[in-house]
Order: sequence, then C-alpha cells, then structure tokens
Amino acid sequence: MKAPRGFLLSGVRAGIRRKRPDLALVVAEDGASAAAVFTKNRFQAAPVVLSRRALLKSRGRVKAVVVNAGCANAITGREGLDAARRVRARAAELVRCREEEVFLASTGVIGVLLPEGKIRRALPEAVARLSPSGLDAASHAILTTDIAPKTARATFRHGGRRGSIVGFAKGAGMIHPNMATMLGFLMTDAAASPALLRAALREAVDASFNAISVDGDTSTNDTVLLLASGKMGGPALDDESDGDFRRALREVCLSLARMIVRDGEGATRLLHLEVRGARTEKDARLAAYAAATSTLVKTALAGGDPNWGRILAAVGRSGARFSAGRISLEVGGLTLVREGRPVDYREKDAARLFSREDVPVVVDLGAGRASASLITCDLGHDYVSLNADYRS
Amino acid sequence: MKAPRGFLLSGVRAGIRRKRPDLALVVAEDGASAAAVFTKNRFQAAPVVLSRRALLKSRGRVKAVVVNAGCANAITGREGLDAARRVRARAAELVRCREEEVFLASTGVIGVLLPEGKIRRALPEAVARLSPSGLDAASHAILTTDIAPKTARATFRHGGRRGSIVGFAKGAGMIHPNMATMLGFLMTDAAASPALLRAALREAVDASFNAISVDGDTSTNDTVLLLASGKMGGPALDDESDGDFRRALREVCLSLARMIVRDGEGATRLLHLEVRGARTEKDARLAAYAAATSTLVKTALAGGDPNWGRILAAVGRSGARFSAGRISLEVGGLTLVREGRPVDYREKDAARLFSREDVPVVVDLGAGRASASLITCDLGHDYVSLNADYRS
Repeated sequence: MKAPRGFLLSGVRAGIRRKRPDLALVVAEDGASAAAVFTKNRFQAAPVVLSRRALLKSRGRVKAVVVNAGCANAITGREGLDAARRVRARAAELVRCREEEVFLASTGVIGVLLPEGKIRRALPEAVARLSPSGLDAASHAILTTDIAPKTARATFRHGGRRGSIVGFAKGAGMIHPNMATMLGFLMTDAAASPALLRAALREAVDASFNAISVDGDTSTNDTVLLLASGKMGGPALDDESDGDFRRALREVCLSLARMIVRDGEGATRLLHLEVRGARTEKDARLAAYAAATSTLVKTALAGGDPNWGRILAAVGRSGARFSAGRISLEVGGLTLVREGRPVDYREKDAARLFSREDVPVVVDLGAGRASASLITCDLGHDYVSLNADYRS
Repeated sequence: MKAPRGFLLSGVRAGIRRKRPDLALVVAEDGASAAAVFTKNRFQAAPVVLSRRALLKSRGRVKAVVVNAGCANAITGREGLDAARRVRARAAELVRCREEEVFLASTGVIGVLLPEGKIRRALPEAVARLSPSGLDAASHAILTTDIAPKTARATFRHGGRRGSIVGFAKGAGMIHPNMATMLGFLMTDAAASPALLRAALREAVDASFNAISVDGDTSTNDTVLLLASGKMGGPALDDESDGDFRRALREVCLSLARMIVRDGEGATRLLHLEVRGARTEKDARLAAYAAATSTLVKTALAGGDPNWGRILAAVGRSGARFSAGRISLEVGGLTLVREGRPVDYREKDAARLFSREDVPVVVDLGAGRASASLITCDLGHDYVSLNADYRS
C-alpha cells in the first residue's frame, strides 16, 4: 500500500527489541497540518507530554513522526522527558525542521527509561530508507505483541479530485478492558486546517477506536495522529465540503479498530455488544462496559459457551439503572431473554450463534432510548501465555 | 469441625450436579436469631428475593437453611420464584416450621429454572442425615468450581462462658473482578437479637468478604447469613458486651474470605494491594479496584512478573485524583517507584518479591490520607480452562 502524496516512511531496527524492527519514521516532505488525540490516563508518557506541547507550539504543524516499540518511556520522570527530547533534537537535525515539528510516540514496557542512544544511532538509517512505499516497514516497526501489522486505506473526492487516507496502527495488545498502548497514524493528501482535522479526528475516533475501548480507559501512551499534506491540490477542505473526507476517515479508523480487536492477544472470537433502551448514554456505557470487560463473559466467549447469564449478571452489577423484569437479550437475532425471563429457545441454536467468529449480542434495558456499543474479544489460553511473561 | 450448640447439618446428592453432593441443609433445633447480607446486583435471584422477604416477615428468625449448588435460579422470572417457594414449603413441612423461617440460597448456572422436584425429593434424606457433625458434608455440598471446602471456627467469651462461631462458605469461583456466587453461612451459640447480629455482620463482612470484592460488584446470588442459637446460655449479647464476639466473627469471616480468594479458580498467587494517600476513600477504592481487576495485572501476577507499570497504568486510568509526580509504589517493603519515578532497585529483588505466594503491594497516591485494601488472585491457564467450558 502506498502512502498518500507528500509522505515518506521507513522502519528499521534500533536494537530496543531483540531482532525485530522497532523504530518507525514518517516524514511529510513539505510538512503537514496535524491533529492528535491522546490518552486520558493520569500517567502521560514522556512522548505524549512532549508531542502535546509541540503541537500547540507549532500550531498544528508536523514534519516528522518518530515511533519506537519496546519501551513506553512512561513513569520515567524527568530523565524520561530528557531522553525523549534528545531523540527529538536528533530527528529535527536530520530532517531539517524545528523541534516542535517532530512528533514522538512510544510503546512497550512501562517504567523503563528510553534507550535514546540506540534510537539516535538508528535514526540516520531510518532517514536513508525513507520511501513512499515504506508503509509496510513502518507498520511492522511499531508492533509489540500484535500478530500482524494493521494498515487501511480509503479514498474520497473533493473539489473534483480524488484524495486518499492511509493509516497504520498497533493493537492495544490487550484490548479491552486493559489496553496496552494503542497507536494510530493517519496520513492524507488533503489540504486542511488543524482545526478541521481535530474535529474530523475526534468524530472518527469516537466511532472506531473508542468503540473497542472506553474513553478514559486508556494506557499511558495511547495516541492517534492525523496528518494532511495538502498534496492532492485543489481547494482546502472546509466545514461545508468535508463530508466525503470524514466518511473516508471513519472508514479507515473503523478498519484499523476492527483489526486491533481481531488481533487481541490470542483472540479467536469477537463479541459485538449493543446496549439499548438505557435511560441515559452513561447508563448504556456502564452496562456495556461491565459486560465487555467481564473475564467471565470473555472466557465463556473463548469456549463458545452461550452463557448469557454472565452477560446479564455483569449488566446487573454495572450501576446502570433498569428494572430486572424489563430486560431482554438477543444474539444474532435470536431472542433468549424477554421481560426478564428466558424464552423457550433451543440450546443448540444458542450454542451455534455463540460459537461463530462474530457474536452480535443486543441487551435492551427497557428503561429509555439511549444506547452504546462495544466490541470485545474472547480471553483464551493464548492471552494468558502472552501476558504472563510479556517482560521476560 | 463441630457445629456450635443448637445446630444440625447435612449434605446430600439431589442430582442437580452429576455425581456430586449438591444440597446442604442447616437446621437450628430450636430456631435461631438471624441476620443476612445480600447481593446488590440488580438481578436478584429467586432465593435472594424470597429469603430477604422471609427474614422481614419472621422478624429475623430462621429454623432451616436450604442451599443448592448447580443452579442459581436467577433471571428465571415468576417460574423461578414459584419453584423456590415449592422447595421452601416442603422444607417447612419436613422440619415443622413456618415457611418464612426457611432460608434459601442457590448457586450455579444463571437463567436455568431450579429443578425443584429433585430438591424436594432429596430433602427427606437431608433431614434424616442431620447431625451436629454434618459440617463437612454441608460444606462440600455447596461448592461449584471450588477446589476445596471452606470452614472456619473461632471462640469468644461472654458472661463468663465460652461460645463459638463456625462458618462455611463457597468461593466466588471467579473472585474479583467478576464474582460468581459467594455464599457464607455463620452459626454461633451466642444469644443475640437480630438487630445486634445485623450490625456485627455488616462490620465483619466489610472487613472480610468486601475486601476481596467491592461493594456492589456482586453476583445475582451472593448471600452471607449469620444464625445465633442462644444455646451457650448466660446473658444475651448487648452493644456494650459484644466486643469479643465481634472479634471472633471478624476472624471467622476473614479466614473464609482468604480461603475463597486463595481458591480462586486456578489461583497460584495473591496480590494484597493497599492504596494509601488518597484524597477520599472513594478515590482509594477506585484506584485499588482498577488495579486489582486488571487482567494485565493479574496475568503478570500469574507469571511472577514484577511489571509494576501495569499496576500504575491501571491506577492512572481509574479516575482517582492524584498527581503523577507524587506517586510511590513498594512491594514487600522494597520501594520501586518514588515521587513518580522508578528508583534504582535490583530487578532480581523485585522479581523475587513478585514470585512469592503472597505479594504485598502498597501504592501511595500522595494526595491525602484515605486508604483502601483489596486482595486479588492471579489469572492463569487454569482459570481459562475452568471458565471457558463451565456450562458444558
């Protein structure tokens, strides 16, 4: 997959991870407008702190993006900030831009200082390898426990021309309920102001990455960045004319989000949970969150077990307001519970629906009109194997 | 272990579970004062609904307790209530008491109607086998996925006499964060009013069972019952003189709670997490809860991995208010993080502390004086095996 016009990418080995590419570089040849969404965790990793400030200082201009895997550089105090600053200074020097035009992102183990020497020494090779077709290398270099790289592309029309949006991401290794770092990088050749990008990105993230997690339930490093090079030519996007761009952006984000959850560590099955009929959106989210994060629900899902009782028990303790006698639940169109009582369904049918790769469950609280959706993956043996010795 | 004076117990096979005892009976020969704590889940199982009402109607008097495993009789609508009522009527007939003096509890699969015929047919044998030394049989008959039965005993002095408290419990199979049903039954030969028992039980439960879970994070069936036969003789307990009784009650509850978490499905290691220095107790509980329920923290614990970053990342997204630069973390007395930065400790020392059977971790938020503690178990392969096919 080729990057949109105006972007060069590369991915190299800096030696942070053993025998794996672990350093990605994106350069906007003539700079780009930028907008980003960051983690809401109280612990903000050093690259998050610096990149947030840099975007403000540069007024939404980015020339280079430096991403490393293997070390999150989170909860590392002043030393962590200093290490990240040295990486940034070296990158600015190499791509010839101001330091605030360098955007940093890191993912990996928390509490370990960034091996900045390794990164600085690898940067010249990353610059040398920059290429319009470097997406593959870059998307590999940001992975941690992900099984496969994640890239997506969509096109849009504006002012009689065709533009493209290309994104790459790394999985929240652990997806829901405890995201490891999720990183997403989106590039477009559209011309757009940082303000327009911010609004479009917020909307797209809410409909995609935030539907596989929950706002606030974020790691120390989560970052989604959108860059616009303006190289497609023609008029800049404006609020009146950005409809097709926003659609394409949502499409790319949704594709990446689905790949992330599908690649959830050891995941074999997805639960698409919709909570309807809630009194407020907050109630709907509470209920969906409790069920989607329940290890009982996720292990039952791993076994393809139609144990809907675990879903409702989680909803019941979620804090969402509803009356037990009004709840209903269906899976793949088959109603299992109506008005708080199991209906007369065939166990075989339920078992079949719960053992598919995608299990769509709707819980109706019967208490109002608000709704919320979440996608979560099952929790099987591979998850345990991957996470019990992640650091070793 | 013998029951306190005034109590007879038995455990038999009703055929709800395959080839396992699944029906326990407790009879207070001359009745008992009673107090109970029930689940706060919005879905209250039929036995919870009926027992709560019965205690009100009988003004805290209980003659018989009927407990079945294998079926929770939760989310079963009116039919579930009717089935439970028929069990209760048969028990009242057999032990010759009023229906409201029969206390019911169930545990097992949710959403399946109670096989009340099997229970009614097994009740006569349960009555025939009643014995002061039936604790062992009864404690076995209430288990689901628990590895071993859980019983505890303590003595106390009152009015120059010695009394005893004996309890038995079944594990929240899944302990924290998603309790399956936790049942606890406590018997004493003290003489006490239901009001005094209620106060003492609430206090003891808060210090024990609620420290392995969190108030509100309860299944559809959770129940803890305290019965007092008065057979030790002497004056009744009163608020001025119940100190030693309360101490003994806390002791029994704490022993049972520890056995439950130790028996957490597939558990090999316990995390004793204390959050200190919070602005409010709510903040402390939010932080402790987020870390203790994190599957990342629990899988790292299974691997004996000193990945304290996962603990802090969970605290950071918990919603608790604190400043990242003021947090500190220690394990078994060894400080790993101070003022938001890792200190210079030896990885080997941290690894050794995290691979013990009990891992005591203290997180100090540096934001106030409130604190909260939780005990949680690790999440290993056995947990997945047990839960992926619990119903099959």
